[in-house]
Amino acid sequence: MTTALVLACTLKPSPAESSSVLIGQQVLDALGEHDVTGEVVRVVDHDVRFGVSTDEGDGDAWPALREKVLAADILVLATPIWMGQPSSVCKLVLERLDAELDETDDEGRMTTSGKVAAVAVVGNEDGAHHVCAEVFQALNDVGFTLPAGAATYWVGEAMQSVDYADHDETPEKTAETTKTLAANAAHLARLLGGAAYPA
Amino acid sequence: MTTALVLACTLKPSPAESSSVLIGQQVLDALGEHDVTGEVVRVVDHDVRFGVSTDEGDGDAWPALREKVLAADILVLATPIWMGQPSSVCKLVLERLDAELDETDDEGRMTTSGKVAAVAVVGNEDGAHHVCAEVFQALNDVGFTLPAGAATYWVGEAMQSVDYADHDETPEKTAETTKTLAANAAHLARLLGGAAYPA
Amino acid sequence: MTTALVLACTLKPSPAESSSVLIGQQVLDALGEHDVTGEVVRVVDHDVRFGVSTDEGDGDAWPALREKVLAADILVLATPIWMGQPSSVCKLVLERLDAELDETDDEGRMTTSGKVAAVAVVGNEDGAHHVCAEVFQALNDVGFTLPAGAATYWVGEAMQSVDYADHDETPEKTAETTKTLAANAAHLARLLGGAAYPA
Amino acid sequence: MTTALVLACTLKPSPAESSSVLIGQQVLDALGEHDVTGEVVRVVDHDVRFGVSTDEGDGDAWPALREKVLAADILVLATPIWMGQPSSVCKLVLERLDAELDETDDEGRMTTSGKVAAVAVVGNEDGAHHVCAEVFQALNDVGFTLPAGAATYWVGEAMQSVDYADHDETPEKTAETTKTLAANAAHLARLLGGAAYPA
Repeated sequence: MTTALVLACTLKPSPAESSSVLIGQQVLDALGEHDVTGEVVRVVDHDVRFGVSTDEGDGDAWPALREKVLAADILVLATPIWMGQPSSVCKLVLERLDAELDETDDEGRMTTSGKVAAVAVVGNEDGAHHVCAEVFQALNDVGFTLPAGAATYWVGEAMQSVDYADHDETPEKTAETTKTLAANAAHLARLLGGAAYPA
Repeated sequence: MTTALVLACTLKPSPAESSSVLIGQQVLDALGEHDVTGEVVRVVDHDVRFGVSTDEGDGDAWPALREKVLAADILVLATPIWMGQPSSVCKLVLERLDAELDETDDEGRMTTSGKVAAVAVVGNEDGAHHVCAEVFQALNDVGFTLPAGAATYWVGEAMQSVDYADHDETPEKTAETTKTLAANAAHLARLLGGAAYPA
Repeated sequence: MTTALVLACTLKPSPAESSSVLIGQQVLDALGEHDVTGEVVRVVDHDVRFGVSTDEGDGDAWPALREKVLAADILVLATPIWMGQPSSVCKLVLERLDAELDETDDEGRMTTSGKVAAVAVVGNEDGAHHVCAEVFQALNDVGFTLPAGAATYWVGEAMQSVDYADHDETPEKTAETTKTLAANAAHLARLLGGAAYPA
Repeated sequence: MTTALVLACTLKPSPAESSSVLIGQQVLDALGEHDVTGEVVRVVDHDVRFGVSTDEGDGDAWPALREKVLAADILVLATPIWMGQPSSVCKLVLERLDAELDETDDEGRMTTSGKVAAVAVVGNEDGAHHVCAEVFQALNDVGFTLPAGAATYWVGEAMQSVDYADHDETPEKTAETTKTLAANAAHLARLLGGAAYPA
């Protein structure tokens, strides 16, 4: 069974409506069409600490989320854009993943080896490509593989304020892109699941 | 007299229509309201060579453009967005400006000291903030000062293809932002023109 | 009296040693040579909430820090580099500053109008220019002016692990750059203190 | 037979020594250990035009290079860092690759589908992670897959001027990273060569 974890990096705790939770759920649904199962976790609902270790102690919620990351074949980061950049919560998650650089198995492979990553981005007006650039680089740094078409996104016209979650229907181009992302991520996760990178 | 130079970094030589030339001209017009005079130069119409020196020799067109940069109080880079990033022509200009790091006057000030810079960005759908980030950083590295509101931009909705130059009327938010840019750049250039940074 | 606030964006609470607190203090000391007084605040010691408003309520520590920002003529963000990018704490601060876009005085000027910003960056090996790019853009977006030479930084050789705070003596180039930053920021803050941007 | 093309994006034409040609050759040699054959092309030796089409006409050298890209299973972009960013020549190559978005086969797959990309970066002091971010994003946008560990790089200490090509021996960490890149890129190219993404 191929599995996915979507970490939604909105700044707002539940039950506030969140565009990044929405697009994250849409990616998960699209992965479902390829027999990938999983869940969306809203990171800010958990007490994840700032840091670059696997466990910052003292009630840190990251170790529990980390277990979910390590159990999944596909990791999707869904993030809002703030100031043209990934959210601070997204950056917090990436910093916690940085700890995986020091975590290797008996054959020297990172814990993330063979895992596939993808990115879903929503903003009012601008910044999706740069958010992808930042997140792709950080995820690749810590061992994830990026399928062709590893991102889906929506932004509106310059200096406007409509949210992705305000749409009655998913913008068509974004919906198509989400489908491609899911098909490619599922395909690549299965390939790598059957043939590990050299140790 | 306060003067400005707009370097338009479209990939297309004249006489092709260019959104970055258009927004560059709009910035110049807005500066004109503050008694700043100057011109728009379409870089790709000139044989500027790749390099990081002030003169790459052999017919290099940069030295002539460089004279214009050094004569101006305000430098505006107008660039299209390609792939969420500044154009290669914009990057080429920044690399040529990198040579100014080694050019100082008798008191140790860079040739760019006291000059104000601003950025104008146009794209179909995404990337303006990141383009500003890249250009701000590179221009600041080589000695330019950035006024509050140093950028104006336009982009459309995600994955669309309308150009800035396709609009019958300038999008209102962009027009307002261009005005603020011009007012602030003119103000700051005059302040610095009257009171140089310490040597 | 010209004043400065340094927000140090280390991930580690006091009393852990911090390279970004160190370089932030060095910038403040260098500003002191130009009769600028102020303080360094380690953001993570305060319970600043994720969000994009001026006050997220419920014990949010941002309003108290915000008062310090609004009282200062110069804001310095000192940040470590993690994964080639600004820290999540730095990003958190920028997001909170985003609220200033909606805060204007009777003449329509932003609360940040006339304030000067600068950046100090430390990392083991790589990322200072990009961190500056991100922070310059975000600070300029919300109304700050960036003096020539608005950044100072230190990084080591690729893939090494020495910290800035591990040095017995400040690396010479960084020390010089810090001095220039301070001289220029103080100069520009005084100019703008005496001559506000047009309303 | 699995094949690779390295496009070296130095600003300097042959026969000038080039650090990016050097690291590009090292990546190719490392790929050779995994039975991948190919060549290094120094882009600036060819008259590649600015543009975003597959052929800008009038002696444009891109169509010949494009044939090499389309014939290779693995594309490596080797670029110097200038001002903390990819070179303008690298950006020029990415813009030319943007044309592939409109080039699909009978089943709707992009010409780049199934191709693997990697990045090699050299600079004096800073910028490798950001260069990777920019290049990863642009290459992924146009259909390339990025293996785990898709980058190798070298930079020196902050504000220094030693070049990668100045080293008598390859810095050890960079040499190791290059090996991992090659092993992973070869593995992933073979997997995708045997099992295309869904149409």
